[in-house]
Amino acid sequence: MKLTCMKDELLAAIIYTQKAVSTRTTMPILEGLLLEAQDVLKLTGYDMDIGIEATVQANIQEPGSLVINSKMLGDIIRKLPEETVSFATDENQVVIIESGRSLFRVKSLDSEGFPKLPVVEANRSLNIEQAMLKEMIRQTIFAVSTDEARPNLNGSLLVSEAEKLEMVSIDGFRMALRRFARDPEKEDQSAPWPELRFIIQGKVLRELSGILSDRGMIDIYSTDNHIMFNLGDVKVVSRLIQGEFLNYQSIIPTNELTRMVINTRDMQNAFDRSLLMLSAENNRFPVTLSTPDEERLFIDITTVRGTLHEELNVQLTGKLIDCDFNPRFFLDALRVIDDENIAVSFKGDIGPCVIRPESGDKFAFIVLPLRK
Amino acid sequence: MKLTCMKDELLAAIIYTQKAVSTRTTMPILEGLLLEAQDVLKLTGYDMDIGIEATVQANIQEPGSLVINSKMLGDIIRKLPEETVSFATDENQVVIIESGRSLFRVKSLDSEGFPKLPVVEANRSLNIEQAMLKEMIRQTIFAVSTDEARPNLNGSLLVSEAEKLEMVSIDGFRMALRRFARDPEKEDQSAPWPELRFIIQGKVLRELSGILSDRGMIDIYSTDNHIMFNLGDVKVVSRLIQGEFLNYQSIIPTNELTRMVINTRDMQNAFDRSLLMLSAENNRFPVTLSTPDEERLFIDITTVRGTLHEELNVQLTGKLIDCDFNPRFFLDALRVIDDENIAVSFKGDIGPCVIRPESGDKFAFIVLPLRK
Repeated sequence: MKLTCMKDELLAAIIYTQKAVSTRTTMPILEGLLLEAQDVLKLTGYDMDIGIEATVQANIQEPGSLVINSKMLGDIIRKLPEETVSFATDENQVVIIESGRSLFRVKSLDSEGFPKLPVVEANRSLNIEQAMLKEMIRQTIFAVSTDEARPNLNGSLLVSEAEKLEMVSIDGFRMALRRFARDPEKEDQSAPWPELRFIIQGKVLRELSGILSDRGMIDIYSTDNHIMFNLGDVKVVSRLIQGEFLNYQSIIPTNELTRMVINTRDMQNAFDRSLLMLSAENNRFPVTLSTPDEERLFIDITTVRGTLHEELNVQLTGKLIDCDFNPRFFLDALRVIDDENIAVSFKGDIGPCVIRPESGDKFAFIVLPLRK
Repeated sequence: MKLTCMKDELLAAIIYTQKAVSTRTTMPILEGLLLEAQDVLKLTGYDMDIGIEATVQANIQEPGSLVINSKMLGDIIRKLPEETVSFATDENQVVIIESGRSLFRVKSLDSEGFPKLPVVEANRSLNIEQAMLKEMIRQTIFAVSTDEARPNLNGSLLVSEAEKLEMVSIDGFRMALRRFARDPEKEDQSAPWPELRFIIQGKVLRELSGILSDRGMIDIYSTDNHIMFNLGDVKVVSRLIQGEFLNYQSIIPTNELTRMVINTRDMQNAFDRSLLMLSAENNRFPVTLSTPDEERLFIDITTVRGTLHEELNVQLTGKLIDCDFNPRFFLDALRVIDDENIAVSFKGDIGPCVIRPESGDKFAFIVLPLRK
């Protein structure tokens, strides 16, 4: 192998593909990145669960392939003195990395030993804006269950139908749902979306989120077992979670008894302060939400540290409330809501609480109260 | 106690004084800040070794004093909703902290139990720019010895004489010296400096450095045992290190055999890359500096990871060199030098190496070579 490429482009590809490199493995080859030089230079990271490929334009004088320790490669490239870098291999599996007047000689591994990525043929695919997927992940990822006894909830459900797109996460205590309606006015939504359902691992969504950009499109398609996210220069492939997701439609309550409109940041800041009353040893104290009248919400917490009392303006319709919640569950949802105001609904003091937009249905966050 | 003050001013005072609060103590009172309200609000942190006082303008309705957990206080004040905050105490040592519609009630401790800071009378004092002291600390702190068997080297020596000011740190392997000459043109240096010598704990210099500003003056004075740094609104007091400092003047070599002028950043970057060849387990490999001729410096390192060869332009006069160094010792010095070029001198291949400005004597960094 012998090639020259731009340092910054190579570094970007390393940063993408490093996300799929194993950090805890006893097999050195899995700590490496596969570099393959043909028409372009292709980098691959694969921890046997998630695989990421990225391509870089390069002036290739001799094709070839090798595996090199991912962390060392990234550290070296980051600190090179010049804008271009050249790679060459000698007969002893030593890679010579040269930039300006810096010359590194480091060991590589045989690319034969690198595991093959699963092949996912491009069949029926969902083509959407990267920004849409990024937004859906950001607003639902926190509610992905980490309970290994419920593997089908260890990811988010992505549902596409002709006119809408939904991502949903559920753990035992809360649900997060983000929805987009098709907008035929938008060029890239001119055709209806195909009917697809995937349960995507939370870990994959987290890594993918760091790769998605605010512009550009993404193609998503799958086989029975694997899913492919094709961003063009970067591809992410992973195993799908098998099995049925919860019937989340049936969880969303209807006929609520109380609805209050409240400023999102005011509520977030009050809950944020309530965490100050929790100590590291003792953090299971509930926060009490109560409404003395239709215009005020009280947020109260009492712990070994002391008490906090907060008052917020609300516009309430229906029954006054008095119920206990885990403040962290509320905070997780409030933090990802960009709307100025939200509508919070209750179904009695022990029924689920739902946070929705003031109008429309683009998101729904459900939090279960604690028993008094 | 009952008072109102500005949140941001209080927070600044908390951040300063927190630096002197014990984080590892079995005495809860030492984890607290002392708040004393008389004409102004005064905050004090004191870990029995270093003490910091800061004053805040406040509207004081009832004087008084109390001790409150430092971390909790800082966290609460940081998250308050409004620009002002009020404090009040009730009969049960509970402090009521109120801002806007947030009301905290937290426990306080009796201020009687808080240790008294040592009294340091303002006698003969050194009055200099804070920026000068900050610069001296930054350029010498890294060479302070942490060897507890040599307590007199666990700090930096600050020497003021009529016409010059020096700060020096020495550990077993290197020395860092920063010097200022008096400039009678400068208003604040119009009078000669008094003759003073202090050995100031490294830990104190580190905390002080975070408080010093780029403008404003500082007064430094001492008793036999304690030193006071008076910045006006903030005062730092600590024990002095007793005993004699090393006779550092005798360490600085003269009659060097080799002198080379080199670009500071080029040399720093080359040494920085040399660290990439060290692994966490095995980081004691030397870097070899050698000069094939008067115009080039080679920097080479060979480790289990591989090799690195670097070439730099130099202007060398005297004997060619070939010697081994710990790259970290060079890097520590190079990182704090702002000059574009430096003059590096050698006294043979096993004598000490000195880094100086290209002209003048405002700093000198000595690094001992490793035996080949």
